[in-house]
Amino acid sequence: MKRYQALADDIARSIRQGLLRPGQRLPSVRQASAARKLSPATVFQAYYLLESQGLVRPRARSGYYVSEHVHALLPEPDAASAPDGESRAVDISALVFEVLESAMARDIVPLGSAFMSPSLFPLAKLGRAMAHEAVHLDPRSTVDDLTPGNAELRRHIALRYRIGEVELGINDLVVTNGAIEALNLCIAATTRPGDAVLVESPCFYVALQTLERHGLHAVEVPTHPREGVELGALDAAIRRHAPKACWLMTSFQNPLGASMPEAKKRELVELLARHELPLIEDDVYGELHFGARRPLPAKAFDTRGLVLHCSSFSKTLAPGYRIGWAAPGRYAQRVARLKLTNTLATCVPAQLAIARYLQRGGYERHLRGLRQTLRLQQAAYLEAVARYFPSGTRVTRPDGGYFLWIELPPDRDALALQRQAAQRGISIAPGPIFSAHRGHGHCLRLNYGHALDARVDAALKVLGELSAARSAPA
Amino acid sequence: MKRYQALADDIARSIRQGLLRPGQRLPSVRQASAARKLSPATVFQAYYLLESQGLVRPRARSGYYVSEHVHALLPEPDAASAPDGESRAVDISALVFEVLESAMARDIVPLGSAFMSPSLFPLAKLGRAMAHEAVHLDPRSTVDDLTPGNAELRRHIALRYRIGEVELGINDLVVTNGAIEALNLCIAATTRPGDAVLVESPCFYVALQTLERHGLHAVEVPTHPREGVELGALDAAIRRHAPKACWLMTSFQNPLGASMPEAKKRELVELLARHELPLIEDDVYGELHFGARRPLPAKAFDTRGLVLHCSSFSKTLAPGYRIGWAAPGRYAQRVARLKLTNTLATCVPAQLAIARYLQRGGYERHLRGLRQTLRLQQAAYLEAVARYFPSGTRVTRPDGGYFLWIELPPDRDALALQRQAAQRGISIAPGPIFSAHRGHGHCLRLNYGHALDARVDAALKVLGELSAARSAPA
Repeated sequence: MKRYQALADDIARSIRQGLLRPGQRLPSVRQASAARKLSPATVFQAYYLLESQGLVRPRARSGYYVSEHVHALLPEPDAASAPDGESRAVDISALVFEVLESAMARDIVPLGSAFMSPSLFPLAKLGRAMAHEAVHLDPRSTVDDLTPGNAELRRHIALRYRIGEVELGINDLVVTNGAIEALNLCIAATTRPGDAVLVESPCFYVALQTLERHGLHAVEVPTHPREGVELGALDAAIRRHAPKACWLMTSFQNPLGASMPEAKKRELVELLARHELPLIEDDVYGELHFGARRPLPAKAFDTRGLVLHCSSFSKTLAPGYRIGWAAPGRYAQRVARLKLTNTLATCVPAQLAIARYLQRGGYERHLRGLRQTLRLQQAAYLEAVARYFPSGTRVTRPDGGYFLWIELPPDRDALALQRQAAQRGISIAPGPIFSAHRGHGHCLRLNYGHALDARVDAALKVLGELSAARSAPA
Repeated sequence: MKRYQALADDIARSIRQGLLRPGQRLPSVRQASAARKLSPATVFQAYYLLESQGLVRPRARSGYYVSEHVHALLPEPDAASAPDGESRAVDISALVFEVLESAMARDIVPLGSAFMSPSLFPLAKLGRAMAHEAVHLDPRSTVDDLTPGNAELRRHIALRYRIGEVELGINDLVVTNGAIEALNLCIAATTRPGDAVLVESPCFYVALQTLERHGLHAVEVPTHPREGVELGALDAAIRRHAPKACWLMTSFQNPLGASMPEAKKRELVELLARHELPLIEDDVYGELHFGARRPLPAKAFDTRGLVLHCSSFSKTLAPGYRIGWAAPGRYAQRVARLKLTNTLATCVPAQLAIARYLQRGGYERHLRGLRQTLRLQQAAYLEAVARYFPSGTRVTRPDGGYFLWIELPPDRDALALQRQAAQRGISIAPGPIFSAHRGHGHCLRLNYGHALDARVDAALKVLGELSAARSAPA
């Protein structure tokens, strides 16, 4: 990030957190320049940027002031969830599909979607890479590049981990049809029907659906909205339920946006190792960090091969290409064999296209732009939520990804809100689909991966209005 | 097929079945022309073709004679298999992988492979279709074309069924990552762990691996090497074991090459309907027919939505693209939802590429060429097997697909043969991997989907020699 952007960011944060109030004067350029040890030009650039974002306005001969219409952000949720701690068979998939299918109309405002805007992906450049590979396809690759996957692609994936100081070799990786297949295979490799699996509370509904499909029991563990699952509670749940696996999203968790600090990830890995318990780590959002560097995954601390790490290019590069992977540690052969009997292989031209794209460079630059876009969109959404949602609402401010988790006042009903919103052409993801016991009934997940245009702004206003009224069952 | 080809074929069959013996004179062109009501030019063309295939040679001023080195074909197996009729948990996958992994070296002669030569696919033309679609990708398609799949692709698939007189609509189809995913989803949609499933004996090892993976029991049903599963035995097995599904490959079954006659397929569907038993129909080889038209699948007779029909483009067009489908009848919603939680979706550019290829025409012409190539390769392999394998060997002559099933004399051990052959750089698929009770110990499957060049000929000779000796355990 450039210096002026960092300064603008810093001021924007102060405004949104209410440290700088609407109408308050910013320090003069000279003051700021001296205090921050920046050139006056840099300060000017920062103020221009804030002005273009509508956060500040100049007054003639008097300097810059915080805009009157800027609202202080709503507070963040600050307590860990408190699930009941029981182990239960999962029966949530029908509800999840009901909610998702109600949101499938093309013209719906996709605030409940799990996808960010497809316009954020470098599809043209990727398309050219695929065109090249498709036309020059070596016929033998249609057999050679089946499971565990194209060697060149695996080399590039391993290299990216190596740059991030995670030691992974080509042969540690199995290419899959997106992260969802990777996660399915890792669950199949570590459990049998009837086993218990520990998950976050709330957790991504696909994890719950996967447990349901495999006949597994879910144990939800208290989870903090900023720092992820609580290790003490996790330890207690292990002792009580003797689970066979633990399935966590350790960075920018869907739906909370929580990220475990690295020291906590290390502690997690050590704790699970003491119990010989495999960790299935879903890390699909790790690259979408707003901080200076990619948070280390738990896999970085795995010395025992007990972490089955899964990720994909679907959130950063090419959702429709369906290229994911697993780094399953000591379960690598088992996962590769399960992959062969699940789908045999992953689309070869798509593997080659992504390998070529990575080879030719530009991924890092694309990611920088994407992260910046998402960061700005998060700020805009947070502002709109603060403007439209009722007092008593809390909302997360994650350091990456593209989801906000909103806690409405406790007497509101997110499932009723979801049905009312659907009738108004707006989708949301209601809290109960993220819980085996259908908890989080007054919460919802909002996707900020689409530009906040007038249509989205109007939709957020409608949601705010619907949330202001105590819900009658719809 | 042209007239001269049909005539050449007919004569080739007579030679290979021993009706015309080595050294015997063919009818003169004038005789054949009169008898067959064909022009002399057509007869000449047929004789030239037979000469080019090495089956006949001209002698100056004396006409055409059957080549001296042509061997009569070995007899076909003619008895249905006789499995023990028990229901058993499947434990075959480790053996299958052991055998398959021993055959993965790139330079091995791939007689045990499940793939035909990649040079038989129109990869350049497909690649151009994919290049076009990749470069012109509508960003929205990366979301819109997720499960159940691209509508245009489904329309083309439905259309091909319609031409073959099978009534399927766009909404009956779910696009999958190859037929293997389709079959997995159909098994998951119809069974629970511990249930029994009826399969052929022998049956494709991936079916057995899938049952093993899902914790299901297999009941092998007696199967005739030409006409498929025996319906009386199937009925008895249903009454005895109360299975929850029946999994059959109704046309050009892998490994036998058996095809149920259409009347038998109809009877099968009626029989299963009386028991309300779903049929999972694996029809991936149906398009590779040598007869005049594609055999109807059992799905054509399904009036109750009980047939879950699965197929793919992997055997006809593009193995590495991983595009298959299910037409799951009354289980369509269940299969689509399972697909969402298994892999979410199928590679979008690959779907679009195949849709465009089908749209632009040429698939039917490609298939005609492919069928003709496989038919000729089968003839060449049958001849070589007859030349090299010991007396007492029987071998199938399927009307489609690209596998031969070889029954060696009963005291031979195909697993030992497989290990000996692997040491000589040759793969085969030994009988026991096609059976939950590791039966068919003296049988093997040979792939004739690769041109019979000098290297393959030498490999067949080695196999014949190894088969001639009673096997010592390797």
